[in-house]
Amino acid sequence: MGRAVTSGASSAASGNTGSAASGDTGSAAAGTGHAPGPRQRLLDAAADLFYRQGIGAVGVDLVSKSAGVSKRTMYQQFGSKDQLVAESLDAHGMAVLGQYLPADGGDAPPRQQILAIFRALGRWTASDKFRGCPFVNTATELADPGHPARQVARDYKLRLRDSFARLAERGRAADPQLLADQLIVVFDGAIVQAVMGTGRRADAAQTAAAALLDAQGVG
Amino acid sequence: MGRAVTSGASSAASGNTGSAASGDTGSAAAGTGHAPGPRQRLLDAAADLFYRQGIGAVGVDLVSKSAGVSKRTMYQQFGSKDQLVAESLDAHGMAVLGQYLPADGGDAPPRQQILAIFRALGRWTASDKFRGCPFVNTATELADPGHPARQVARDYKLRLRDSFARLAERGRAADPQLLADQLIVVFDGAIVQAVMGTGRRADAAQTAAAALLDAQGVG
Repeated sequence: MGRAVTSGASSAASGNTGSAASGDTGSAAAGTGHAPGPRQRLLDAAADLFYRQGIGAVGVDLVSKSAGVSKRTMYQQFGSKDQLVAESLDAHGMAVLGQYLPADGGDAPPRQQILAIFRALGRWTASDKFRGCPFVNTATELADPGHPARQVARDYKLRLRDSFARLAERGRAADPQLLADQLIVVFDGAIVQAVMGTGRRADAAQTAAAALLDAQGVG
Repeated sequence: MGRAVTSGASSAASGNTGSAASGDTGSAAAGTGHAPGPRQRLLDAAADLFYRQGIGAVGVDLVSKSAGVSKRTMYQQFGSKDQLVAESLDAHGMAVLGQYLPADGGDAPPRQQILAIFRALGRWTASDKFRGCPFVNTATELADPGHPARQVARDYKLRLRDSFARLAERGRAADPQLLADQLIVVFDGAIVQAVMGTGRRADAAQTAAAALLDAQGVG
């Protein structure tokens, strides 16, 4: 992630406020008292539209119009749609992580912190606005491994993996790196199941995570 | 799945022969001695192109050209791109499942059959042509839950879930339906991790599956 995440990253891609960016320009200005500029409005509208409708289905015309900005300004700010895709994902990535990853896990035991992440995941996937994980959606839809947005998606997903690895180490897992990979497999699989609607038991991911913690002695 | 899967379903979407359909028209005729007709060529080209490049990135012009068929014929055969997406996924769905799900698991113990599915998954995700699961890609890229291809994708994914559930029952799992959901979560999560390249340990999914089988007493 080459860019600092802006202070206005609390809105569109979060999935809870998925329809906010196209009409409501207040989100990015929250706490600052300033209306967002054209660049921030483009980032918000792009993240919202790409998340709700898909990257391929949304053209720069629609993003510009939704942001109330000319297409020329869009190109001046971002140069290309590919760059807009990458930067809008980056600008909202922390808000996406914030759906399930607390900034500070506090003093709770590692096992409890890990299970809390899966409970938060369950709330996210059950919400009306849930349309998958923006990082996974981006990596899935953009076939080119060299697309700049794929690196952004990967970097954010690695933050979650690193959190799992740190917690697994603190919890004295038998093999913390393996447990971290197992937990992120369950995490992303739960997201896919929610998108596809093929699971029957809403507690599948949480109980799987608990069983994996048990197997590695993280009590 | 409203359509019978054709005998030519062994090619494009399988991921192992991902580049076959666009130039090689022999795949659908294998074993029959007949060259495939325009409809089959369109199904093969569509499945291959949508899988490799993404649904949104591939227009009907490219599919028709790759199949050596006029766009008019494409519309006569399928009516719309949406229908072509759905039918091409359906026509190649069994070949996708065949990558990891044996038609007949034989007499091996259920635990061994389940772990064999995960070993096959590992081979698939490690192959050069792997570009994710066509069912997951389709459901992820098409935001409209009512798109006809999403139902096709869901139906095929449910076949895998049903296989897990049957094996879990035969293996006397403590809660076979929960185990089936847990296993498909791990299965799809492993696919996402392979697409994103965020895992470190290639054995994460297989060891997770084994731990979940252990937890449910499937020895």
